[in-house]
Amino acid sequence: MKGTLFVVSGPSGVGKTSIISALMNKLENIVFSVSCTTRPPRPGEVDGVDYFFVSRDKFIEMREKGEFLEWAEVHGNLYGTPKKFVLENIEKGNRIILDIDVQGALQVKRNFDDAVFIFVAPPSYEVLKERLLKRGTENSQSMLKRLENAKWEMSKIVEFDYLIVNSDLEKSILAMKSIVIAESYRTRRILDEELIKRLFKGVSESETGN
Amino acid sequence: MKGTLFVVSGPSGVGKTSIISALMNKLENIVFSVSCTTRPPRPGEVDGVDYFFVSRDKFIEMREKGEFLEWAEVHGNLYGTPKKFVLENIEKGNRIILDIDVQGALQVKRNFDDAVFIFVAPPSYEVLKERLLKRGTENSQSMLKRLENAKWEMSKIVEFDYLIVNSDLEKSILAMKSIVIAESYRTRRILDEELIKRLFKGVSESETGN
Repeated sequence: MKGTLFVVSGPSGVGKTSIISALMNKLENIVFSVSCTTRPPRPGEVDGVDYFFVSRDKFIEMREKGEFLEWAEVHGNLYGTPKKFVLENIEKGNRIILDIDVQGALQVKRNFDDAVFIFVAPPSYEVLKERLLKRGTENSQSMLKRLENAKWEMSKIVEFDYLIVNSDLEKSILAMKSIVIAESYRTRRILDEELIKRLFKGVSESETGN
Repeated sequence: MKGTLFVVSGPSGVGKTSIISALMNKLENIVFSVSCTTRPPRPGEVDGVDYFFVSRDKFIEMREKGEFLEWAEVHGNLYGTPKKFVLENIEKGNRIILDIDVQGALQVKRNFDDAVFIFVAPPSYEVLKERLLKRGTENSQSMLKRLENAKWEMSKIVEFDYLIVNSDLEKSILAMKSIVIAESYRTRRILDEELIKRLFKGVSESETGN
């Protein structure tokens, strides 16, 4: 049985990372796809864990070699998902979690229609604004850009399979966990020749025609 | 937000009832749809809880009045799902669990394409045969009929959205619970006008055009 790609997206500041971190500890056969970025690390972020931090030149070189599943420029920085890692883990039967912006998610959707697309939304645009103000890691211009972007991103919710409105972190974690488990019971994902053979064990050859 | 109908089906003797019973205690807003049947109660079964036990004449009268969402004759007995109960609970926003045979599930599928269809399969046909032998509540003729039917039912798995192979009861309960929770986060089920209004609260009128 092949693995499944889960694309988790939504406006920045919405709490995607907290939900995903909690999820990684609760499930088996789950791997996090580490993206490449040209943006500088934030305090506490580790190269190779949170992101692969690369120079703009290196990023463009990789992009030209076709090494990204998707890439995007967000708030002046480049972000990209290394293709090789995702494909290898799908072959291994793993669940791969991709945490990307909406622009990138829509790009993946055009190439991977078998992936599962999950949108994490704030309780409202108003609440997102307050959260970003409290976080206070940015200047007001960068924040305005982020909010403008959030509005556009929220207009794309309908493109996603699932919508988690993140009002309560514990509830959102349970929702995400349930989605990931449920998807591994989808008939179209699991019913392959091997499983059919296993299920029909004990039906004699002469009977199968009935 | 409207409720969702979950149709749980699979060969008899597969353990559907144990999975559903456990589920009912673990989730909120969940109701079990009680079917009508003309078969006599088994020891421990309670009228109005496990089934509404009715006479063949009464059943046929209800059927003629169009009171069933689906009905079927299985092993010589009539089974039917009262329509009113299901529709009322969908309006209330509840999750309704329907435990019916495959023939009935396929009938519901023709009328309710928005329902979620879950097939519970034995680890193999061979294992099901052993389980039924151990249960020993029936004569060998009725058991042969049941096994013949199981084969046909298992050939319909592909019609179902989800497939739970019941090898481990606890795992199957978690699977079913995850499916029911996950489905309540499906974008197409929940993104109505009211939610859109709530999500975009704080975006001023003049901005929404951007």
